[in-house]
Amino acid sequence: MIHTDLCIIGAGPVGLFAVFEAGLLKMRCHLIDVLPQVGGQLSEIYPHKPIYDIPGFPEIKAQELVENLMAQIKPFEPGFTLGERVEKLDKDENGTFKVTTSDHSEIHCKAVVIAGGLGCFEPRKPDIENLSLFEGKGVNYMVKDPEVYRDKKIVLAGGGDSALDWTIFLANIAKEITLVHRGDTFRGAPDSAEKVFKLAEMGKVNLILSSHLTKINGNGHLTEITLLDKNKVESNLEADYLIPLFGLSPKLGPIADWGLNIEKSQIMVNTEDYSTNVEGIFAIGDINTYPGKLKLILSGFHEGALMAQSAFKFVYPDQKLSFKYTTVYGVNSF
Amino acid sequence: MIHTDLCIIGAGPVGLFAVFEAGLLKMRCHLIDVLPQVGGQLSEIYPHKPIYDIPGFPEIKAQELVENLMAQIKPFEPGFTLGERVEKLDKDENGTFKVTTSDHSEIHCKAVVIAGGLGCFEPRKPDIENLSLFEGKGVNYMVKDPEVYRDKKIVLAGGGDSALDWTIFLANIAKEITLVHRGDTFRGAPDSAEKVFKLAEMGKVNLILSSHLTKINGNGHLTEITLLDKNKVESNLEADYLIPLFGLSPKLGPIADWGLNIEKSQIMVNTEDYSTNVEGIFAIGDINTYPGKLKLILSGFHEGALMAQSAFKFVYPDQKLSFKYTTVYGVNSF
Repeated sequence: MIHTDLCIIGAGPVGLFAVFEAGLLKMRCHLIDVLPQVGGQLSEIYPHKPIYDIPGFPEIKAQELVENLMAQIKPFEPGFTLGERVEKLDKDENGTFKVTTSDHSEIHCKAVVIAGGLGCFEPRKPDIENLSLFEGKGVNYMVKDPEVYRDKKIVLAGGGDSALDWTIFLANIAKEITLVHRGDTFRGAPDSAEKVFKLAEMGKVNLILSSHLTKINGNGHLTEITLLDKNKVESNLEADYLIPLFGLSPKLGPIADWGLNIEKSQIMVNTEDYSTNVEGIFAIGDINTYPGKLKLILSGFHEGALMAQSAFKFVYPDQKLSFKYTTVYGVNSF
Repeated sequence: MIHTDLCIIGAGPVGLFAVFEAGLLKMRCHLIDVLPQVGGQLSEIYPHKPIYDIPGFPEIKAQELVENLMAQIKPFEPGFTLGERVEKLDKDENGTFKVTTSDHSEIHCKAVVIAGGLGCFEPRKPDIENLSLFEGKGVNYMVKDPEVYRDKKIVLAGGGDSALDWTIFLANIAKEITLVHRGDTFRGAPDSAEKVFKLAEMGKVNLILSSHLTKINGNGHLTEITLLDKNKVESNLEADYLIPLFGLSPKLGPIADWGLNIEKSQIMVNTEDYSTNVEGIFAIGDINTYPGKLKLILSGFHEGALMAQSAFKFVYPDQKLSFKYTTVYGVNSF
C-alpha cells in the first residue's frame, strides 16, 4: 500500500515533468504506467527517433529526452509502479483517492493526475484462434522481466524495432530463439536488422522470414506453434514462450468509467488549471482536450505547471502557496 | 523597409521559440528588441545563471538556452532589428500593420506578436543633474557597437556583471578606461571582479572605488565628469564617454497606447490562441495574463505554439492548415 500526494497515471514525458512542478511545491508523486518502463510512447514506440520541437533542443533523441527528464525529477524521489494497468478509482470516506491496478497494487493519494497520452497502450494481437487461452500461459505481449526466458525456447514474432531489439537481447539468455516475420525485410533500424542477420548466420538466432503464425498448441501451457510460409507450406516449432511484438494501439481503458467529461476519447479540462469536472482529478498532455489544444509534448509540460499550482491548493488547502523561481533559489532549496 | 508575416516584438526566449512554431507553418518572422542582443532578460540580466525549470534540462545556463534556441530557429531565417525600441503601430488600408521603431525602422507585417517579457527594459539612470542633456552626446546606457569607443577615454560606472564585463572587454579597445563604483566590492561574478582587479594592478584599468558620479561637464559633448569619494573629496576625470551600467527596469512603453486590454501592465489574452482584443495582435510570455497564468518560460513556449496556429489562419485565411509532427517529417520538410 502506497501513500502519496499525487498519483500520476502515465509515466510519459508529461507525467514525468509533472513530478518536477509538483516537487517544487513539495508534493510527493507516485507514477503508474502499463508499460514496463518510463517514457511512454517515446521509449516504447520511437526511442531512437530525433524530436525537433522541444524548446531548447534543435534535435534530441526521444529516449535521451526521457533520460533527461528522469535526471531532472530525481531530487524529488518519485515512486513508480510499472507494467501495471490502472483498473479502479475509489474515494475513501476521508476524501482521499484509492487507485487500484491490474496487479492489485493500491495507491492512496490526495489528488489524481491523468497523464495518459493517447490512452493505455494495448498490444496489437495476431489473428490466431485460441490465442487468448494461452495469454499468460506462454504467450506474453511484453518483456517485463527477461530472466523469465532464461534457458527457454522462445519464439518472437514481428518486424519492427521491438522484435529486433528483443531478439538481440534475448539471444544471450534463451536456450533457443526464433524470430518469425511475415516479410523478408525489417521495418526497424537497419543497424539492428543487420545484427539479427549476423546472429542468424552465426546460428545464434533461428530466423524464419516470409512466414506467419497460424496456430498455437499446448495443454494448459504453450508447447508448439504452427507456421505457414509464402508457399503455403505448414511447419511446427517447439516453444516454451511466444512473444508477439506487433506494436501497441491506444485505448482509453477503465478511465472512461470514472465519470469524467469525455469527448472523442479525450478528457475535457479547464485551461486555468487543467482540472476535470471531478474535483481532485486533473488531466494533462495528449489525453486532454480544450479549445485550441495541440497534442504537443511542450503543451503538456505547461499544463503540468499550472496543474501543480491548483493541485497544491486542493491537497493542502490550509497552506500558503509561495511561487518561487528556480533561477533565484535553485532546486535544492525547494 | 522590411516585409514579413509576423513581427515579433521582443527577442527573448519566448519570442525566439515563436519563430520555430511559425516556421513550421511556413510563416516568416522579424523580431525587434530594444536590447542590442537577442535573449531578453536571460542574456542581459543573468546570462551565467543556471536555470532548472526548462523541461529536459536538469540545469542549463541562461545564455546557453538562448544559443540553443537560436540554433533551433536558424532553418527559418528570421530577421532581427536590435537595439531599437518599438514606438508606433499603424494599420494600412490593406489591413497590414506597420511597426515603427525609435530609429525609424519600419516593419510591415500581417500580424503582430508581442513577446515583450516584463516590458521594454529601460536603463536605470544615475541621479545627476543635466544628465539628459548629454544622452547620446557622450552618455550611453548600453554598448551597442564597441568600436565607437576605440582609442577614446571611457568612464564606466556600476558594480554588477555588465560593468565588470564591459570593463574587461573595452580595456583592449579604449585609449583609457576608468571604472567607478560606489562600493568597494562587486555584485558581479567573483571571477570577473578578480579579472578587473588584475587589470587595475597591471595599469590597464583605472579603478575608482567608494566613489560616485555627481556632475557632468561639457559643451554640447561630454568632456569631464566630477566624482565624490566617501570622504566627500571631489575630483574630476577627463572623458569622451560615460557609460552608466546600473541595470535595467522594465516599462510597458508605447504598447500601452495600442488599444489593448491591459491589467496591471499585462495584456489580457484568450487562452485558445493567446490573441488580444485587437484582431491580428497576439501576446505571449510574461507580458500577457489570463486565469492561472504563471510567468514561466515554458508557458511562453506553449503559448507561442497555439498562437502560431491562429496567426496562420489570420495571415493566410485561404490556405488550409495541416498540422504535422516534426517527429515524423523532420524540420527541413516544412
